[in-house]
Amino acid sequence: MKRFFAALMACGLASLAAAEEGMWTFDNPPVKQLQQKYNFTPTQEWLDHLRLSSVRFNDGGSGSFVSATGLVLTNHHVALGQLQKVSSPQKDYVADGFLARTPEEELKCPDLELNVLVSMENVTDRVLAAVKPGMSEKQANDARKAAIAAIEKESMEKTGLRSDVVTLYHGGEYWLYRYKKYTDVRLVFAPEQQIAFYGGDPDNFTYPRYDLDMALFRVYEDGKPVKPQHYLKWNPEGAKDGELVFVSGHPGSTNRLYTLAQLETLRDLSYPMRLEGIERRLGVARAYAARGKEQARQAAGLIFGLENSKKALSGEYKGLKDPQLMQIKAREEKELRDKVAANPEWQKAYGDAWQAIEKAQASFRERAKEYSYRRLSGYRLPGVALSIVQLVAEVKKPDGERLDGFHESQLPSLKFRLFSPAPIYPEFEEVLLADGLREALEKLGPEDPFVKAALAGKTPEQVAHEAIAGTKLADPDFRKQLVEGGEEAVAESQDPLIALARRVDPILRQERKWYEDTIESVVRTAGEKIGKARFAIYGKDTYPDATFTLRLTYGTVTGYPYNGTIAPSKTTFYGLYDRAASFDYKPPFHLPQRWLDRKDALNLATPLNFVSTCDIIGGNSGSPVVNRQGEIVGLIFDGNIESLVGRFVFDITANRAVAVHTAGMTEALKKVYDAEFLVKELLGQ
Amino acid sequence: MKRFFAALMACGLASLAAAEEGMWTFDNPPVKQLQQKYNFTPTQEWLDHLRLSSVRFNDGGSGSFVSATGLVLTNHHVALGQLQKVSSPQKDYVADGFLARTPEEELKCPDLELNVLVSMENVTDRVLAAVKPGMSEKQANDARKAAIAAIEKESMEKTGLRSDVVTLYHGGEYWLYRYKKYTDVRLVFAPEQQIAFYGGDPDNFTYPRYDLDMALFRVYEDGKPVKPQHYLKWNPEGAKDGELVFVSGHPGSTNRLYTLAQLETLRDLSYPMRLEGIERRLGVARAYAARGKEQARQAAGLIFGLENSKKALSGEYKGLKDPQLMQIKAREEKELRDKVAANPEWQKAYGDAWQAIEKAQASFRERAKEYSYRRLSGYRLPGVALSIVQLVAEVKKPDGERLDGFHESQLPSLKFRLFSPAPIYPEFEEVLLADGLREALEKLGPEDPFVKAALAGKTPEQVAHEAIAGTKLADPDFRKQLVEGGEEAVAESQDPLIALARRVDPILRQERKWYEDTIESVVRTAGEKIGKARFAIYGKDTYPDATFTLRLTYGTVTGYPYNGTIAPSKTTFYGLYDRAASFDYKPPFHLPQRWLDRKDALNLATPLNFVSTCDIIGGNSGSPVVNRQGEIVGLIFDGNIESLVGRFVFDITANRAVAVHTAGMTEALKKVYDAEFLVKELLGQ
Repeated sequence: MKRFFAALMACGLASLAAAEEGMWTFDNPPVKQLQQKYNFTPTQEWLDHLRLSSVRFNDGGSGSFVSATGLVLTNHHVALGQLQKVSSPQKDYVADGFLARTPEEELKCPDLELNVLVSMENVTDRVLAAVKPGMSEKQANDARKAAIAAIEKESMEKTGLRSDVVTLYHGGEYWLYRYKKYTDVRLVFAPEQQIAFYGGDPDNFTYPRYDLDMALFRVYEDGKPVKPQHYLKWNPEGAKDGELVFVSGHPGSTNRLYTLAQLETLRDLSYPMRLEGIERRLGVARAYAARGKEQARQAAGLIFGLENSKKALSGEYKGLKDPQLMQIKAREEKELRDKVAANPEWQKAYGDAWQAIEKAQASFRERAKEYSYRRLSGYRLPGVALSIVQLVAEVKKPDGERLDGFHESQLPSLKFRLFSPAPIYPEFEEVLLADGLREALEKLGPEDPFVKAALAGKTPEQVAHEAIAGTKLADPDFRKQLVEGGEEAVAESQDPLIALARRVDPILRQERKWYEDTIESVVRTAGEKIGKARFAIYGKDTYPDATFTLRLTYGTVTGYPYNGTIAPSKTTFYGLYDRAASFDYKPPFHLPQRWLDRKDALNLATPLNFVSTCDIIGGNSGSPVVNRQGEIVGLIFDGNIESLVGRFVFDITANRAVAVHTAGMTEALKKVYDAEFLVKELLGQ
Repeated sequence: MKRFFAALMACGLASLAAAEEGMWTFDNPPVKQLQQKYNFTPTQEWLDHLRLSSVRFNDGGSGSFVSATGLVLTNHHVALGQLQKVSSPQKDYVADGFLARTPEEELKCPDLELNVLVSMENVTDRVLAAVKPGMSEKQANDARKAAIAAIEKESMEKTGLRSDVVTLYHGGEYWLYRYKKYTDVRLVFAPEQQIAFYGGDPDNFTYPRYDLDMALFRVYEDGKPVKPQHYLKWNPEGAKDGELVFVSGHPGSTNRLYTLAQLETLRDLSYPMRLEGIERRLGVARAYAARGKEQARQAAGLIFGLENSKKALSGEYKGLKDPQLMQIKAREEKELRDKVAANPEWQKAYGDAWQAIEKAQASFRERAKEYSYRRLSGYRLPGVALSIVQLVAEVKKPDGERLDGFHESQLPSLKFRLFSPAPIYPEFEEVLLADGLREALEKLGPEDPFVKAALAGKTPEQVAHEAIAGTKLADPDFRKQLVEGGEEAVAESQDPLIALARRVDPILRQERKWYEDTIESVVRTAGEKIGKARFAIYGKDTYPDATFTLRLTYGTVTGYPYNGTIAPSKTTFYGLYDRAASFDYKPPFHLPQRWLDRKDALNLATPLNFVSTCDIIGGNSGSPVVNRQGEIVGLIFDGNIESLVGRFVFDITANRAVAVHTAGMTEALKKVYDAEFLVKELLGQ
């Protein structure tokens, strides 16, 4: 860690993107850097092909079209939620894997929405025009939101496409992104979780690594497989050491442009609080899983997610606590502020932004506890109940005045999730709801208005038991009836979970309003100023923080210093069997039976995983890695342990993106899963 | 690193050996700890058997008898010097390996001396009795040395055994160690260096690891293989995860009992100076190796040694620079000094020791440059010349007054080395001598008395060229003639290298005297006091710093947290092939042809290397790892990167000893080297 920051400190270019750094939007690709360092010029056609082959998994992941007949490749852990939803106590596709040998065997996912970014339009002027001189920050915030809702609605009505206005550079720019949307998505292949997530939580976020973290879906439209205009050509040789590669995917969020005050809030407040919450929830989920095999199956996805978050956040938190990181950030900020201060015009327009954010942080800290613990937390049903209660109220308002999430353009995706027929596990729902309520009680005390409204004089366990035992919300048709019945039906509903949601709704709205008016509006206005200041000073040679929108990143397939020696750029099947034998085949280092049986059939020198200097973060999971020819040579699934601090600062020395190698996927499909027919489809044969 | 020290700081037992910690002398084995933690009580017979099976490689390493007919097992890198000496431009046994299929094919080593510790006797009282009240520190130092020389000489004459008085606990105790000595040692087996030192300098001092770092010698007496009374039974299953194991070997030196002042000298002066010198010497040796294949062969051993030192010292230096290490050491020292101060008697007897050492350190710092760079450095011949010049003078003095290294008891080993018929490489000798002289010139300036005496008005390169081109010292018979001719022959010799040694000898003696009288005598007297204070306060529940004498350490075969995940307790042949394929078989990760050819014959799940919590350091290389039954289950060859700071402080969290697994050695001997007959001998079949 120390050498790592030392390298950054020495480079002296902290304010500009370093070589390889950057999650670039497709409207502003790093052409200059690619030409200078790699003598490679991506054509518009090359860029369009990659963008239109890229797929967003709307519940948090990335993927790509990889065949002429609609195959979409992503990670097993991105598919995990759907795998669990199509499983049953009798058929555990998470543990056992799945392969459809015929189209008929493909399994339709209950609530998977995929998006392809078909157009991008800069609407900054239109959004900012809504803000009139003399408006308060709150008024400006409301005006911006109304303008955004209007743009989105207009676009959706005009084009029929999913239309999102995305905020880039913390308000420096606004873009209208239009997506082609797919909701008939069927599962084709998933390996056993034990090989997809080989090494389990210990190996998560590390490298060298040996994971076949892949899954294949097929996208349908009108009951037939789509023939996508763009899909990535499968390169079965895969990535080579030293090769230039690209990643096109949807990094979820980074905080590289945060001000010092925002980072301090994360360090001193948000991270400790979130880690404590995760630890608590993990304890509950593990205890539930210990009740039996079926309970373990139900809880597996949540436990995976919580462990994953815990490890990621722990690494990020460690970075935040390193005084050297804060030093780098302080230097960066000082440089920018000094440059602003040196120009009277800039100083007048932007100079007060940092202090404004600092003040907003102070306000946030004062009320963070209430804002954080006043929430209806559970597994799936409490969210369903609250969404219904809020939806029927919001749709009656003018679009521009609705709560975020309920704008006209957002309703189709919301309803798709809300009416999902995915199975519900009441026993698990009750345990998590009870613990969520108990957490609120412990943190806020019995006199807190939220706690009083939620518990209504009972214990958390009583409330949770009655709500879950008595609710009919497990039935999607019941949900539809309520939504169709509107405010009246919801107000009159005797459903105890709906009643609980109704009781807490006013308080949650109050919290949200407080946050929007007191924090968000200030930070947004200040963020816009800082964004403009950056453009004025550094031009657009930089990229916005990640926002779960499509980004292009590039880098080299290369090892790095690790553990006193060097890590190779790739691992092989030999390494998988070494790690298994080294741990005497004990979990989480055991192998699925199939992998033991088929060992001798495999060419063990085949590459399995590899690393590159591409700049990625959570949300990039499932992103394709492509070569200069735009062929797919790998599948992003993780970052190494040194990459976790990449949320705040990128360093090429040891920050690496970890991917599954196409050679390894090809070999496994053929030799372990007898899926030669899929390989043929991938190869276009 | 941070967690590591945090764990130590928390344990609060810094002054006493932690579990698993300790390089124990065989007179004071950690019986209590073994009983408490492992319910194992080593009997005297068990201890004697292990001690008498253990072998010291006198030029810096360890080993053990492993067959009834005199086979001795050690590391390839311990054997490296001899391998190079029995090689020639035509036969490079370092690169190609060696296997004697018959006794006749075994290769006699030119200057390898092995020692077996046959008895230990506490002579503290006798040594200390030589120091009379009222003596100055210098007088006390001389008196001690004379007493030690007398004890050694008397013992040697009485027993015929090599007799060394060793200083333990920095003067807290003196022991007479008697060794059975073997000088007819023949090479039986060595693998290719590329598999013995697989991964080269990058992987050195790291784990997971894949090295077959082994060599087998056979010990002869009177022209016949010895039948040692004690040898370790070969256990072909090898060490198991979680098993209690022991290491019996010769750790070279540690500085765990150093005072703060001594550690600061290391940190601020000695380490930077040594690392600079190593870097310089490496540059010279590498440039020489680049001249051609034969030059590369000649320089290989030195380059290995320098790279090895550089990596070890760098890790130690990093530890020294960590403020937390110094904090631990400061706390330890304060605790001890406070306890001494609280007892008036102790305070009177020992209280001034720390300040005395501090003052001596200050004196040393003032003159460290002269002391360090006034030396005749080169490869082998300059040392031979200086030894001869000093030897003929010293032998005429009473034993007690001679320079260290020339006492009666030390002469046999000195002459064995001095008259070695090992090959000499004049071109290499010249390059290294020239650079050593140039270094002295650069560091000390042309007016320095040593530089003036050495150069006598010429350039370093002229002096080195004339001395090496003109010397006959490459011929062992010439060396013998000079030694036999005594002071007169040496004084009259026209040999230019002898002349050079004669010119600098008076200055080197002066430096040595200054060091002994000003530094050593003070530190020794103070060290004795601190040693006694420790005994008085903590009893003998502790162990002395390492002194290249036989020590027993124990621990568990177990993995550790590493790289964001956990390292397994063992690696397998799978991992070797993974690392090779991962690096596309590029050096230093390529494999000897034999290992490529024989791959399919191997059971790749066979353990190759493993780690344990045993407490070791340089000098332990080649030590046997034995189980409760005293059977050999492994062969120490390295420590992991986290162990380097173990020179100053031991922590069980991640400090691991790395060993070759007997199962891996057995499998390789059988399947790769067709040496079934050796396996049979090891198994006593």
